[in-house]
Amino acid sequence: MAATKPAQEPQSPRPPRKSVPDSARRSERSRRAIYAAALELVGETGYAKTTIEGIAARAGVGKQTIYRWWSSKADVLMEAFLDLGDQASEQAGAPGGEYAVPDTGDLAADLKLVLRATVDELLDPRFEVPARALAAEGLVNEPLGREFVTKLLEPSLQLYVRRLRSAQDTGDVRKDIDPRIALELFVSPLAQRWLQRTAPISYGYTDTLVDYALHGLAPR
Amino acid sequence: MAATKPAQEPQSPRPPRKSVPDSARRSERSRRAIYAAALELVGETGYAKTTIEGIAARAGVGKQTIYRWWSSKADVLMEAFLDLGDQASEQAGAPGGEYAVPDTGDLAADLKLVLRATVDELLDPRFEVPARALAAEGLVNEPLGREFVTKLLEPSLQLYVRRLRSAQDTGDVRKDIDPRIALELFVSPLAQRWLQRTAPISYGYTDTLVDYALHGLAPR
Repeated sequence: MAATKPAQEPQSPRPPRKSVPDSARRSERSRRAIYAAALELVGETGYAKTTIEGIAARAGVGKQTIYRWWSSKADVLMEAFLDLGDQASEQAGAPGGEYAVPDTGDLAADLKLVLRATVDELLDPRFEVPARALAAEGLVNEPLGREFVTKLLEPSLQLYVRRLRSAQDTGDVRKDIDPRIALELFVSPLAQRWLQRTAPISYGYTDTLVDYALHGLAPR
Repeated sequence: MAATKPAQEPQSPRPPRKSVPDSARRSERSRRAIYAAALELVGETGYAKTTIEGIAARAGVGKQTIYRWWSSKADVLMEAFLDLGDQASEQAGAPGGEYAVPDTGDLAADLKLVLRATVDELLDPRFEVPARALAAEGLVNEPLGREFVTKLLEPSLQLYVRRLRSAQDTGDVRKDIDPRIALELFVSPLAQRWLQRTAPISYGYTDTLVDYALHGLAPR
């Protein structure tokens, strides 16, 4: 999901922004090739059939290169998704990957903006196909599912928690609301429509979710 | 999900309630054994490895008995889940399987009641394990996923649509609300917590979802 960027560094060396030595540039190139290969393979064959050997072969690196930086294929995949999130947030004009929920003072507008970006991400095949494959495995493989939630999903949800807390400070959200539950009123419907293909997703749909959640279904 | 009971008959003969002839009783016994075997196997080995042969062997029937009544393993499983829903609704005191969302005139109470029953069902291992396995396959197997949604999920969601429409007639829900989207504010969070194990589910949690959805997050 968009709005993600936990402050977690991969074990591989990240090159400094300027004056990059050749060896770091080669490492960076390998790292990107490994991420791309991992995402492609999991999308094509599913999680169970994806192997470190297969990732290494497709990325054009030795198996040992992967084992030097990551301890399992799950680790490679988690970081490949974090990197994909970094790239999406950089494209969206948030260099450095800080892709928090914005706080302009207009809660509805801020939530709608981030959910629209999430719609874009969910409909991007580079994200959708591998993310669906990993999510499917996570449903039946409990340890992987829990790692997926802890490392990828929950950190992005905490960005909504922070924004809703700030809205409680300014009086835009009731003080007695639990923000961790509240965010689910607009995030979970989008997640379910996308994941289970229960109905189409669009900007109009996520805008509506925000309006319904903030103002309620009952007349005021 | 609870609140389900589409009016769809299996192709197998359903015995009349009284004066059941022996052959019908045998059919009914076979049908139940087949459902039970299908649910067990999909829970144990996943959808891909479940076969008609395996179901027949575990149910103690011939393969031809299954093929006479159903055209695929997907069909057997769909009806096994419908039957599980029937049983749950009968246990909940709705004989005949009519397990609609009640309409007592108190919208919040009616929704909370059905969501509490859904929590019970989701936490019942007889339902949870096979349902999770089928859902996982549906994420990556698009035709199966769509069949799952059309036959099992959407009919149960339409029961909420009907209840919300009735609430619009009595003025308990705003007229300009789209009921098909509105129901997702309390159904999808529960579905996501359960399916992806993002957080625990409980009666208190679903009660809170209903209150937040009806009254909104913003102060009134």
